[in-house]
Amino acid sequence: MSVTAAKGFRAAGVAAGIKDAGLDVALIVNDGPTKAAAAVFTRNRVKAAPVLWSQQVVNDGRLDAVVLNSGGANACTGAEGFRDTHATAEHAAATLGISAADVAICSTGLIGVRLRLEALRGGVDKAAASLSAAGGDDAAVAILTTDTVPKQAVAVGGTSGPSGRQRDDDRAIPASGPAAQTTGGEVGGYTVGGMAKGAGMLAPALATMLVVLTTDAEVPAADLDRALRSATRRTFDRLDSDGCLSTNDTVLLLASGASGARPPYDEFARVVEEVCADLAAQLLSDAEGASKTIAIEVSRAATEADAVTVGRAIARNSLVKCAIHGEDPNWGRILAAIGTTDAAFEPERLAVAVNGVWVCRDGGIGEPRELADMSTRHVTITVDLAAGDATATVHTTDLTAAYVHENSAYSS
Amino acid sequence: MSVTAAKGFRAAGVAAGIKDAGLDVALIVNDGPTKAAAAVFTRNRVKAAPVLWSQQVVNDGRLDAVVLNSGGANACTGAEGFRDTHATAEHAAATLGISAADVAICSTGLIGVRLRLEALRGGVDKAAASLSAAGGDDAAVAILTTDTVPKQAVAVGGTSGPSGRQRDDDRAIPASGPAAQTTGGEVGGYTVGGMAKGAGMLAPALATMLVVLTTDAEVPAADLDRALRSATRRTFDRLDSDGCLSTNDTVLLLASGASGARPPYDEFARVVEEVCADLAAQLLSDAEGASKTIAIEVSRAATEADAVTVGRAIARNSLVKCAIHGEDPNWGRILAAIGTTDAAFEPERLAVAVNGVWVCRDGGIGEPRELADMSTRHVTITVDLAAGDATATVHTTDLTAAYVHENSAYSS
Repeated sequence: MSVTAAKGFRAAGVAAGIKDAGLDVALIVNDGPTKAAAAVFTRNRVKAAPVLWSQQVVNDGRLDAVVLNSGGANACTGAEGFRDTHATAEHAAATLGISAADVAICSTGLIGVRLRLEALRGGVDKAAASLSAAGGDDAAVAILTTDTVPKQAVAVGGTSGPSGRQRDDDRAIPASGPAAQTTGGEVGGYTVGGMAKGAGMLAPALATMLVVLTTDAEVPAADLDRALRSATRRTFDRLDSDGCLSTNDTVLLLASGASGARPPYDEFARVVEEVCADLAAQLLSDAEGASKTIAIEVSRAATEADAVTVGRAIARNSLVKCAIHGEDPNWGRILAAIGTTDAAFEPERLAVAVNGVWVCRDGGIGEPRELADMSTRHVTITVDLAAGDATATVHTTDLTAAYVHENSAYSS
Repeated sequence: MSVTAAKGFRAAGVAAGIKDAGLDVALIVNDGPTKAAAAVFTRNRVKAAPVLWSQQVVNDGRLDAVVLNSGGANACTGAEGFRDTHATAEHAAATLGISAADVAICSTGLIGVRLRLEALRGGVDKAAASLSAAGGDDAAVAILTTDTVPKQAVAVGGTSGPSGRQRDDDRAIPASGPAAQTTGGEVGGYTVGGMAKGAGMLAPALATMLVVLTTDAEVPAADLDRALRSATRRTFDRLDSDGCLSTNDTVLLLASGASGARPPYDEFARVVEEVCADLAAQLLSDAEGASKTIAIEVSRAATEADAVTVGRAIARNSLVKCAIHGEDPNWGRILAAIGTTDAAFEPERLAVAVNGVWVCRDGGIGEPRELADMSTRHVTITVDLAAGDATATVHTTDLTAAYVHENSAYSS
């Protein structure tokens, strides 16, 4: 269901021949009544043409439609590449009878090659002809590159008690699982749904990914923006599979208002974060070549920023990632990673647990490292900085020969 | 010859049983007449006991001896670990009839386990008994861990023309090769020799490595310090095999004055840098699991710091390193890496060459990527930032399945 779980949205995913085979163009249309939208983009200074375009058009807080393609990132393609994106938006707008200034574009695939514009235009025509309220699944497939599975999530807000999506543990990014069914129709009830793609280059300030979220709640664009920034900061921004930062990362949130619900901001923001966390967990589970997912929980930091800095330093450390791949509770490498940061801590007060066993205490030898069982698919590293009361969790994966193989052989 | 190439030094390398087999303790003694010394240490805030010790004792610009061991890093071992280091220095001092406050200690191996102190003491006794002016080769072997070859270099200064070590190209770190023979004995001539160990965790602000340099020039400690910092900044600091930063990195420079030569500072600094560059190139060539060495030459940067920042961002990018391993001239990943930095540049003015072929011009598509031949063992990436006239070269290796294997299986 994903992007069409919320009322007021139609979508399609079609095969346009940009890739050698399979679906490669997706189209999402917001039928309203509201067209409010917000977006977050890559912080990479080398931004793809579709990012430069979409930044402009979402600036007024309105989007009517989104065109997405796999098979080419349209990054580092200069003025010609920007013209290709502009032409795509104009073509979609003409087809749909809307303004190009309300059409966002997202592209993913190889950097540094021009898109096959005629194929993309044909794909837009084909997608426009097959738009439907059941098109979310095809759209989620059409944006995939090296992903092995499509990623979708749905949550329901405005009902009493916890939202419709069950949290199955207490991690910031809950484990992936089947999305809750849309129950819809309650008085004041509303839905937030979304789709994501991304398997490599997951990194801070957004993973390599395209995400489109939709809701039928009626929410002003400013609140959408605030909720989206808050959610991405605590979810996608804390994925770090390989420290690489894409040129094309885009997260869009569109609100149709079709449910009539006008949720309080805090509740709405919580539901948006829940969907983002669900999608982030799915991205992590599908990270290229990974054999393990790793949660790095940093506690007793002086500030949340310090906790994230330490978590990220560990998440990006190749030697730590190799050790976890080898199921070696090599806490010395973890301390060495912490030591590269400027976070507040005293080396002789650090403590580190691996899957719950405190192998390092007071900056030195703790429980015997043999006690730490690392045979689990999910590994938890807990760091106690003994410097305050802030916490944060950063998520990563292990470093494997499969990662090297996939990224040696695949141009992206 | 390495550390005993310069007159006034004796050394030994012995098997003390700290490792299961092989040489594992080295001792170097400066017989003077001068005992001037300087040192550079890891910037990691989690510093091993021998680093904390050696920082103190070198503070007065004097070292009489250095004890080095492999088989254990004595890092993250708390107050007990520091006492072990102190006891080792006291034992060596008593054996040699010198002050413990003039004995530096260097350790390498697994983090987070206590050293076998009795074995180390026995090793010091054995080494002291076998000190000789021909002991440099054994000392260079005794400090190795995952290194596959010992690393030694010698250069001669004070002679007319270029120094005795031939530069075979114009890179900051010249390619490794046989060291020049010590010619010694010229009026005013002097020697700088050294040994190094390190194969993994090569990273900024010193690679994972122990380096001892010796010279028979008569140079005040303050000039030794200045020459050493200048040389390490431009050589070891620009190696970055995997972005990891060790707890034990140490570079020592000891001057005996035994040649009687008092070289001008600039010339002496140049010879020291030449030896450091030679050793750095040997470290890079022996980096764990690498199948290619990569020089990232950044030109037309606004500042040298910008050039290093950009070079390092590329050197640390796993996707770039995988692409080079796969001989894929994937310049889009290089631009994405540049885009993560805060260096001065305009994306649409960037240019990138791979082994001399400008595959990216004006931030977009340049020569066909098929023209770039990447089958060479050494790959040169050239980046033109078009933002000034500063340059720097950063050296790294590719990311391979062998790297993952070695670092999954080996506790360090």
